[in-house]
Amino acid sequence: MQATTDYISVSSKGNRDMIDITPGIRNAIAKAGVRSGIVTVFVPGSTAAITTLEFEPGLTKDLDEFLEKLIPYNYDYSHHQTWHDDNGSSHLQAAMLGPSVTIPVVNGALTLGTWQQVVLIDCDTRPRSRKIVVQMLY
Amino acid sequence: MQATTDYISVSSKGNRDMIDITPGIRNAIAKAGVRSGIVTVFVPGSTAAITTLEFEPGLTKDLDEFLEKLIPYNYDYSHHQTWHDDNGSSHLQAAMLGPSVTIPVVNGALTLGTWQQVVLIDCDTRPRSRKIVVQMLY
Amino acid sequence: MQATTDYISVSSKGNRDMIDITPGIRNAIAKAGVRSGIVTVFVPGSTAAITTLEFEPGLTKDLDEFLEKLIPYNYDYSHHQTWHDDNGSSHLQAAMLGPSVTIPVVNGALTLGTWQQVVLIDCDTRPRSRKIVVQMLY
Repeated sequence: MQATTDYISVSSKGNRDMIDITPGIRNAIAKAGVRSGIVTVFVPGSTAAITTLEFEPGLTKDLDEFLEKLIPYNYDYSHHQTWHDDNGSSHLQAAMLGPSVTIPVVNGALTLGTWQQVVLIDCDTRPRSRKIVVQMLY
Repeated sequence: MQATTDYISVSSKGNRDMIDITPGIRNAIAKAGVRSGIVTVFVPGSTAAITTLEFEPGLTKDLDEFLEKLIPYNYDYSHHQTWHDDNGSSHLQAAMLGPSVTIPVVNGALTLGTWQQVVLIDCDTRPRSRKIVVQMLY
Repeated sequence: MQATTDYISVSSKGNRDMIDITPGIRNAIAKAGVRSGIVTVFVPGSTAAITTLEFEPGLTKDLDEFLEKLIPYNYDYSHHQTWHDDNGSSHLQAAMLGPSVTIPVVNGALTLGTWQQVVLIDCDTRPRSRKIVVQMLY
């Protein structure tokens, strides 16, 4: 068994921009020749999250509206006093959703459902470049 | 070190039916003879989730009521327009909770607490058959 | 590839006490000599959670207030009837946040962002001793 690292680089618009990174993960496991093992997909940084979602425009809109209602942008977060920043909501949303998912690979394929994609949610309040880590153990 | 895959098949009633899958995971690691490593428990599909919980009827009722209040079934989700579906809330609940947990195995045992079980929460709006992936690296 | 287990012992004050456990994880991977692999950080018990967060006092205050508002301590949870307990909110908060994170290790370092720490959130209603499992595969 071995560990191989790959990366997916994306440019996000921030403000809960959601990006389907499943094709990048599939490329990584194909390139490494993973047949059986796991892949951990991890986003460095504390204002972005990774989860799985049926990636269709209705649902991404629903998730965006839900997160805004749950943890609104316009609120007097203590974090804003610390750095004179405006992204307290981004941090809380990311902490709730979590920075990673780990997915089994069986017979060379991710064990995702047919309508299940791996999605980066960039909660920050400005455009960001993200370099997502794809760590494969196989 | 090697990777071995097992499966747990369950029939759920949907509507946040919660099923304790800890015995199935324990069976899988016993059958494979795992002594030291990790197990990733992953549910394919975007309307179910896996988390850990003290699996007792009071708490499963509390979690059910909390999720219904947080992300109610009766709401005009954009997802319903996409597929003329009724399970927008199911998707959002599953995305928040996440599709998997990874648990260490030490001396042949899961490192769960005494009152901590691994639970499938089926958020879909109808009964479903689920085949949960148990991926062991050891 | 091998699996090595280490532990981080902390004393928490409960009530969503948040403790930065990143130094303990860094010590564990240095001691084991992990160069490339993953580390799964898992808290046994169903009233504590692990996530990543920019660990600064403003944000930990924001997260504390958000969790209290989302899942308040003072509420008639069914769990309280089961055990004549007072920590129903603790269980729900922990189930939402999740008991673990898995982080890649590349070139001997965790792939965390500069302002991203691994944090234990002890949601229980009383002081607790926690022994967090650090499982390394490398």
